[in-house]
Amino acid sequence: MNSPDQPLSSLQNDRIKQLIKIQQRARSRKQTGLFCIEGVREIERALAGGYRVEQYFRSSDSVDLGIENLQLKADLEEKTYWVAPKIMEQISYRESSNIIALTEQKSHNLELFKDLSSGLFLVVESIEKPGNLGALLRTAGGIGLDGVCIVNRQTDIYHPNCIRNSMGAVFQIPVGIGSLEEFLSFGKSIDLQLIGAALSPKAVHLNQVKFNRPAAIVVGNEAQGLSPELLAQCHQVAQIPMFNHIDSLNVSVAAGMFMYQALQDSSH
Amino acid sequence: MNSPDQPLSSLQNDRIKQLIKIQQRARSRKQTGLFCIEGVREIERALAGGYRVEQYFRSSDSVDLGIENLQLKADLEEKTYWVAPKIMEQISYRESSNIIALTEQKSHNLELFKDLSSGLFLVVESIEKPGNLGALLRTAGGIGLDGVCIVNRQTDIYHPNCIRNSMGAVFQIPVGIGSLEEFLSFGKSIDLQLIGAALSPKAVHLNQVKFNRPAAIVVGNEAQGLSPELLAQCHQVAQIPMFNHIDSLNVSVAAGMFMYQALQDSSH
Repeated sequence: MNSPDQPLSSLQNDRIKQLIKIQQRARSRKQTGLFCIEGVREIERALAGGYRVEQYFRSSDSVDLGIENLQLKADLEEKTYWVAPKIMEQISYRESSNIIALTEQKSHNLELFKDLSSGLFLVVESIEKPGNLGALLRTAGGIGLDGVCIVNRQTDIYHPNCIRNSMGAVFQIPVGIGSLEEFLSFGKSIDLQLIGAALSPKAVHLNQVKFNRPAAIVVGNEAQGLSPELLAQCHQVAQIPMFNHIDSLNVSVAAGMFMYQALQDSSH
Repeated sequence: MNSPDQPLSSLQNDRIKQLIKIQQRARSRKQTGLFCIEGVREIERALAGGYRVEQYFRSSDSVDLGIENLQLKADLEEKTYWVAPKIMEQISYRESSNIIALTEQKSHNLELFKDLSSGLFLVVESIEKPGNLGALLRTAGGIGLDGVCIVNRQTDIYHPNCIRNSMGAVFQIPVGIGSLEEFLSFGKSIDLQLIGAALSPKAVHLNQVKFNRPAAIVVGNEAQGLSPELLAQCHQVAQIPMFNHIDSLNVSVAAGMFMYQALQDSSH
């Protein structure tokens, strides 16, 4: 701990060096089990979602952030390191952060969905761009799905861009991560109905699908779509008809339509 | 015209200088009425959509692009300038383009929708990011809407990132552009039903909306949403209920759900 009058002011400081590594490298996040959250709003979401912050790094020129959240206020008093504004600029992913929380990752075992046997899930296979993963989490969380499963993870849910695009949803919707084999085995154990989104000759129109719970909407990689292995395991395959020689929708947009339709189906 | 053996190889060449300006600056696109298209597939889409290419710039190390499209083949024979690969790298917006088409813009008068009196449209007000505009065009074109109206334009549909994210849809779906006043006046002239997407106390659930044709789904700016002026003119306002303290969906995702629902409604 230090005071705002004597902020950390060197990039050679060990805490600052560690923070930068964790911001920039998925490997460092994996090794330490830590990640960074920028911004008061996002940090509040994480605390509400049960995340534990290890240390806060705050810019010494922003002593008063006008924080009203009691949990965050108490936490800040115990765990704040003050950082010189110039250093803050260099350790931020966003343009102008004045607070970064070094935070413990959660475990993302698929078993956490075991008790959600009437749930509606989104399953994303091999999504590569953290921004897309964040957008998918935002939609799933925002419209009220019960969880998101990441199969064959190709990007890190704790990547700054995923957190940013998720608008904090990454902290509030349960996320399970596993290999294809683990996911299929888990799905069978709760009789999960898999509804694949794919442009395929055997696909029906999305509005023909029955989303009997527990149900999972399954979407694939940005460029390749679903793997043949996962597609073959889907109980139903659906598509949205395409026009104008445009051969696909953006994965976040298509998944959004599937989630919307699934929620309509449940209301009938 | 030149031969691949003697490609343009200086950034000081007047044609190259003009091309770079048009790539990089909205103002140059406006002044010249020209824009750039990169990639064979996108150029084919533009030709199919009735665009006229003024000149092609091709990398002298990619003489054979395996082009089968007869219209493009004939056009290339007449209008190709060969460019040294090093120059090509510098004038490309994408990472590895080997062809750029300097193309004439179309006019985007709202009157072009006059004859689509049973149509379904997307109206986007004050969208700021070209990538978002492209994504909206991709969805609207992909699922078969009749046109997109851009109200109070804040970004250029011919920005490279808009073209890229639209996956060529920008060339295939009719696009009209106008001020709020022009749009409202045009809407009244064809009795266009405006369905606003907004989180508002007077909003109904999206699944309660009647999309009586001609109908327009109206979405607003990424951060501010619809302007009060346009919102007040909407015949219906609808929303998708939000959960988990997430207060909005990405505009492309929300607009996608509205478009999907509108097409379902028409099928009943």
